[in-house]
Amino acid sequence: MKCVFYISDRTGITTESIGNALLTQFPNIEFKKFFIPFIDSESRADNVLVKIYGKYLQYNDRPIIFTSIMNPDIRNKFQLDYAFHIDFFEAFIPMLESELKQSASKAVGMSHGMTDENKYYKRIDAIDFSLYNDDGATVKNYEQADVILVGVSRVGKTPTCLYLAVNYGIKAANFPFAELDLVNDKLPKFLVPYHHKLFGLTIEVDRLHHIRTNRLPNSKYADINTCKIEIKAAEHIMTINNIPFVNVSKKSIEEISVAIMQQIKLK
Amino acid sequence: MKCVFYISDRTGITTESIGNALLTQFPNIEFKKFFIPFIDSESRADNVLVKIYGKYLQYNDRPIIFTSIMNPDIRNKFQLDYAFHIDFFEAFIPMLESELKQSASKAVGMSHGMTDENKYYKRIDAIDFSLYNDDGATVKNYEQADVILVGVSRVGKTPTCLYLAVNYGIKAANFPFAELDLVNDKLPKFLVPYHHKLFGLTIEVDRLHHIRTNRLPNSKYADINTCKIEIKAAEHIMTINNIPFVNVSKKSIEEISVAIMQQIKLK
Repeated sequence: MKCVFYISDRTGITTESIGNALLTQFPNIEFKKFFIPFIDSESRADNVLVKIYGKYLQYNDRPIIFTSIMNPDIRNKFQLDYAFHIDFFEAFIPMLESELKQSASKAVGMSHGMTDENKYYKRIDAIDFSLYNDDGATVKNYEQADVILVGVSRVGKTPTCLYLAVNYGIKAANFPFAELDLVNDKLPKFLVPYHHKLFGLTIEVDRLHHIRTNRLPNSKYADINTCKIEIKAAEHIMTINNIPFVNVSKKSIEEISVAIMQQIKLK
Repeated sequence: MKCVFYISDRTGITTESIGNALLTQFPNIEFKKFFIPFIDSESRADNVLVKIYGKYLQYNDRPIIFTSIMNPDIRNKFQLDYAFHIDFFEAFIPMLESELKQSASKAVGMSHGMTDENKYYKRIDAIDFSLYNDDGATVKNYEQADVILVGVSRVGKTPTCLYLAVNYGIKAANFPFAELDLVNDKLPKFLVPYHHKLFGLTIEVDRLHHIRTNRLPNSKYADINTCKIEIKAAEHIMTINNIPFVNVSKKSIEEISVAIMQQIKLK
């Protein structure tokens, strides 16, 4: 059992994210993680030090401390004999200063703060848009959409749209292929003008069956044959209409979202 | 104009996030950013090298390259005379290996991959939950909620709930204080049993007025006096009922979300 502290003067989202990425490289070690945001004063840092020292005594083992703290007086408090400390700013800022021939501003990290009001409104608008244009609820606003996801029910369209809206301010609508579209083997008429915005999701039959069974056990909807027929028909519609699509079976929401952004060059 | 490349063998979300955090420390430099995920083969890396060299020639200036690539053969391709290269794995993995007295697994980064199926389902369930329990649509499922956000209309409850669900798998419901609650100066009855799950959002009058005007210009809803009265009443209800709350006026969705998680110790 190894204690790990993520400490930041702001949200700590980035700190935790890179720390976790590094620790997944040591799958045999069990880590006990503590996430401590908003440490922007020496007194707050002192409180955290008490906790770190407590864990050191409790487990008789050096904790790992990942920090991203701009103020060196606060940051240096975590240089301890009884812990291993990595600070992400300290590690890279001097190198970047030398490469860019400029001093860092030393302002507290704002990468997850509200830096740009317009960007903030854009994001709120995108969230509203994705909510109102979820699951084919309406098809009138596709002119404003950045992307329209298509695919069978429960393939993962809604989570992906919300991820794109919430994290990137992308206006993502989604439309489910319903039985009629699938039987007729045709792209719904009102999607045709927005062909360039369409992106498809598909999935392995077993996995869709599993997901739908979770939702409606023993239904026709969840039946493995229904899943098979729907997926085959949906893939056929996407193929003949030249709609790019990805198989999401082994992909996380993040991976699907990045693949979509890459494909339609939204970024 | 400085070109910056974010290159990763996986989604690159973390790479971009820490790179952006570092670059915000140099606000006087204009960066042109290129985001290049899924570089998991030498041939893909070679294609990227062509692009980097092109930008170097075009601007006659050394690009900055941030990578997180586990495979050293691919990673080392970005050690170039004409660019400044930081690799996040290379920078820290050797230190961690020595501290942990273990070799890194060298598996491709999975921090944004689908590592744990249960966690994935939990997240999908949380997204469904937050959608179905948005804006007081129903009050029957609060037993299952991890948190219930309260506050006046347009204070930011929905974006925060979706952020918590999409990124952390937290079941976040939200209930808007309506005119009647505010006039009666009382916490709605059905919220009382879930008092321990309640968390309030509040906002400055001018900012709410601005946000509501954006939505419904010249309405009673957006009127500055309406905003003032509603905020005052909402804050009063939260105060007398001992509901923790934050003022979101200068906070991003990330900052609000982290503050909520910290408060209710969801993590």
